[in-house]
Amino acid sequence: MSDHSHSHPDASSDDTLDRLASVIESRRGGDPDKSYVARLFGKGLDAMLKKVGEEATEVVMASKDGVPERVVAEVADLWFHTLLVLSAHGVTPADVLAELRRREGLSGLEEFAMRKMHQREREGL
Amino acid sequence: MSDHSHSHPDASSDDTLDRLASVIESRRGGDPDKSYVARLFGKGLDAMLKKVGEEATEVVMASKDGVPERVVAEVADLWFHTLLVLSAHGVTPADVLAELRRREGLSGLEEFAMRKMHQREREGL
Amino acid sequence: MSDHSHSHPDASSDDTLDRLASVIESRRGGDPDKSYVARLFGKGLDAMLKKVGEEATEVVMASKDGVPERVVAEVADLWFHTLLVLSAHGVTPADVLAELRRREGLSGLEEFAMRKMHQREREGL
Amino acid sequence: MSDHSHSHPDASSDDTLDRLASVIESRRGGDPDKSYVARLFGKGLDAMLKKVGEEATEVVMASKDGVPERVVAEVADLWFHTLLVLSAHGVTPADVLAELRRREGLSGLEEFAMRKMHQREREGL
Repeated sequence: MSDHSHSHPDASSDDTLDRLASVIESRRGGDPDKSYVARLFGKGLDAMLKKVGEEATEVVMASKDGVPERVVAEVADLWFHTLLVLSAHGVTPADVLAELRRREGLSGLEEFAMRKMHQREREGL
Repeated sequence: MSDHSHSHPDASSDDTLDRLASVIESRRGGDPDKSYVARLFGKGLDAMLKKVGEEATEVVMASKDGVPERVVAEVADLWFHTLLVLSAHGVTPADVLAELRRREGLSGLEEFAMRKMHQREREGL
Repeated sequence: MSDHSHSHPDASSDDTLDRLASVIESRRGGDPDKSYVARLFGKGLDAMLKKVGEEATEVVMASKDGVPERVVAEVADLWFHTLLVLSAHGVTPADVLAELRRREGLSGLEEFAMRKMHQREREGL
Repeated sequence: MSDHSHSHPDASSDDTLDRLASVIESRRGGDPDKSYVARLFGKGLDAMLKKVGEEATEVVMASKDGVPERVVAEVADLWFHTLLVLSAHGVTPADVLAELRRREGLSGLEEFAMRKMHQREREGL
């Protein structure tokens, strides 16, 4: 836990995700030898997307292994790399959270998923 | 936007993710005909993991298409399905955010990724 | 086993993959209500790619479960959907096999993978 | 093109995939410093599965970029890594091809996919 988060023991995820997004913004143009973020931005979007595919696979493996701590760690990796992708497109975790709230607020948390599911049923895919 | 979030216009993501996690907990044992969450829990872990793989692929496709709004929507889908997986393992988004803060606090945001990268270099994979 | 393959008990995979590719070509413009291939082509490339992501995830899950028969079935699903993607791009399984032979022939089976691995080491990703 | 395949200009994929499977068998216990196959087997099943997830993502990206040659190369990578997974489970590409022929023979190429699609419709997932 950082000093910063120690001073905010009830730090919300907004703080966490917003702060991560800020750190990513500040580093994406930095020195690729010192910053993983700068290195991935230097490699380009495909490198980040490849990591998203890889980390999603690791979430699946950790879950199949049934080790909750590894699931947490791999989901953290996956979310982190999606934050890079968001940054690459000029959008933020706040946008994603707003979208999740919007779905919840507009229509109940699940209606969106239900709509997609029913569309899928109609289309048979 | 729900009434609830209207009353918290500055709702943090913690609120959002925690609230989503609570809703998931309350629905996972519900009626599969009414709740997407209940249906996926009824199908079992593999059904959720399949969705994680699928939604990760959709993030990749939306990103390649270069449409920021779709990236946001697909990342929302991906995060939502990882929340289901977390719930299935008895862990929470707060655990993931703590892990992200821990990495940031312990060692700078990027050190963890750098360590993994260097380990990878040593192992050549 | 089809009559056709009965008459070729030692049917090679070339026969199998080529024949599948021919069947796909013949059906991709067909009736979406009768043909899964026609339906996926009607939906478009993204629908096929989503299936590739999904089936790759299923290979991972079957493998983690340690059930060889399911691994075989899921790899068959994955290969089948990659054949659709090849068809969508006007290329064939023969092109893929030629590429695999080329790597084997030029440089030993593994040199290509080794080169990529070493490049990755240099780049640290 | 190897000398071997030069002597078989019409080399079938069976030859290709079988030969690759044989090479994999012969190398999986070898020196990890010299053989990519030995290295991945030394790392274990998860390392191979991670590559399957990664290469599937690369197929998706190449396809979105619309470059047929890259699609061919990435599908070759994906198939190669699925051959490693098959080997790890003691099964072969011939088993996969037999499964593909079985589906074609039993029920028409597409019936299996159609059955799964209809099951999905019934289950709404």
